[in-house]
Amino acid sequence: MKEALSTLADRLCARDPRALARALSLVEEEGEESADLVKAVFRRTGRAFVLGVTGPPGAGKSTLVDRVARVFRSPRPASSQVGTEFGHPASVGIIAIDPSSPFTGGAVLGDRIRMSGHHADEGVFIRSMATRGHLGGLARATTDAVLVLDAAGWDVIIVETVGVGQDEVEIARTADATIVVLMPGGGDEVQTLKAGLMEIADIFVVNKADREGSERLVAALEAAESLNVRGPGALTPAILKTVATSGQGIDDLVQAIWKFRRAAEQGPAAQTLLRRRHDRAERQLRDLVHQLFGRYLDQKVLAPGELAALVTRITGRQIDPYTAAADLVRRAVKDT
Amino acid sequence: MKEALSTLADRLCARDPRALARALSLVEEEGEESADLVKAVFRRTGRAFVLGVTGPPGAGKSTLVDRVARVFRSPRPASSQVGTEFGHPASVGIIAIDPSSPFTGGAVLGDRIRMSGHHADEGVFIRSMATRGHLGGLARATTDAVLVLDAAGWDVIIVETVGVGQDEVEIARTADATIVVLMPGGGDEVQTLKAGLMEIADIFVVNKADREGSERLVAALEAAESLNVRGPGALTPAILKTVATSGQGIDDLVQAIWKFRRAAEQGPAAQTLLRRRHDRAERQLRDLVHQLFGRYLDQKVLAPGELAALVTRITGRQIDPYTAAADLVRRAVKDT
Repeated sequence: MKEALSTLADRLCARDPRALARALSLVEEEGEESADLVKAVFRRTGRAFVLGVTGPPGAGKSTLVDRVARVFRSPRPASSQVGTEFGHPASVGIIAIDPSSPFTGGAVLGDRIRMSGHHADEGVFIRSMATRGHLGGLARATTDAVLVLDAAGWDVIIVETVGVGQDEVEIARTADATIVVLMPGGGDEVQTLKAGLMEIADIFVVNKADREGSERLVAALEAAESLNVRGPGALTPAILKTVATSGQGIDDLVQAIWKFRRAAEQGPAAQTLLRRRHDRAERQLRDLVHQLFGRYLDQKVLAPGELAALVTRITGRQIDPYTAAADLVRRAVKDT
Repeated sequence: MKEALSTLADRLCARDPRALARALSLVEEEGEESADLVKAVFRRTGRAFVLGVTGPPGAGKSTLVDRVARVFRSPRPASSQVGTEFGHPASVGIIAIDPSSPFTGGAVLGDRIRMSGHHADEGVFIRSMATRGHLGGLARATTDAVLVLDAAGWDVIIVETVGVGQDEVEIARTADATIVVLMPGGGDEVQTLKAGLMEIADIFVVNKADREGSERLVAALEAAESLNVRGPGALTPAILKTVATSGQGIDDLVQAIWKFRRAAEQGPAAQTLLRRRHDRAERQLRDLVHQLFGRYLDQKVLAPGELAALVTRITGRQIDPYTAAADLVRRAVKDT
């Protein structure tokens, strides 16, 4: 590892804000320096509590995250049951995932103006991250960004994703607890529920609960949940109603988060959480293996222009992709 | 290849409906038989026109797809400009992607009742596909399902995805033309637009255009599109309004599809479409390489239980995932 990176890692772990900004930029670039940085800080991670927040566009996730962060930041929790784990105020790092724009960088329509109540608060850190447009890149960068914030000593890390696709599901799975935010009247509720969200929710939030249809959505969630087969020891997700714009229900939500955390760490569900962390690490390992193998192929196996020629043979139907892939792997591995 | 698979491939290409059902089941299982089947039929593919339809939940995609299929199926197109490419009726195969449920198979809330107007029409084929819950699996299975329908002689193949995530974007990219369906009042329009959809749309459809806010959404799309930097020769997407439930605007949409197709195949944009097909084939090749390499690791490099032990060392912070991944790749490849 380069000397500069080792210094950066030390400054990061000493909570230098400029080192944090630099480290997250490296992670977003996904280069080899990013890997070296994560290697250097990895043993100093594992302390933060990671909260995932996902749901369809327009459900009010950003406002909800802002409100939850305010409760974490308040010196005296509104409810006596809240926040005993870290004591308040806890420091809150927020990673807002912007899955847009391979080529615009997400800036076409400008960033949301948000967190105005926090901009002078050094205990809150907010970073938007965009994908480079390739499958898996976003999940990888998010995982590393969480490790960086963890190493830098942030107590609570909130990962907020827009969308209900498979990639968002993957990102939500990198969290210790996942909140799925829905809203009444947000279109076809059945489709929303089907889109992979039932399985990943530790807590359901029906936001904009002052709108018509919120009771119906809660009932639909309860009905769907009653049909949902979870493994032994798994916790049934809480279903809460909030109005994030006014703050209604936010204290209850933070309480539900801590309640889930306690149960997952100490109760009969602890085994489930351990398995979840194991599965998450295995996915990350396999993903990195693929990335490194792809790099090996490009650098050591393929001649310049060879891949493009091979792809042209595929589009011309001269060779099928399965045969082409098997040939490439055969040329790369030891044992054929 | 097993004798049975070779027979299945021949029956598939002879348009035997039972062979088609069997072939799609194989593809969904993603086993080695699926690879062998695609290998066997690949050279007989490349003829179908593949249409991707995506957008947020509740936008009315299914109804829209049903309506579009009806126009393709009609013996005399309503507009003289429509359908000269295949002649009518064209046969239509629909793959409805259900990104839900690693463990429920998408059946928790039951399948939509749909396409009631087509159930006796042998020129329409509908299949729902669910993911096995791992990143990339859905895109791979969808690509292969399109090849299977193509080999079986279907003229038009429509791939319908729910959601606005990165994986849906990948799936949309497997199409020759991609329709992004939005609706007025579907929540935060800016978020919807940011979620990777601007880049992939060949045609925007504002469905439910009889609702309040449809003009505003069209204006927002036009404004965003005017800021969007596309490559030289790229086509500016058409923006159309429809009311799928009543059929309003559907003929215009089908016309826009054919217009896009003509321009993309014969006009100055043809170069762009060629590059798109090339990129798609390259992504597919890399994905298959990763899958095969993962299988090689599991079968030839890792001892039983070794991966689990390694992952436990990662979660225990004894080794970082980057170092662990590099070790695994080093043990597998020829040249270290």
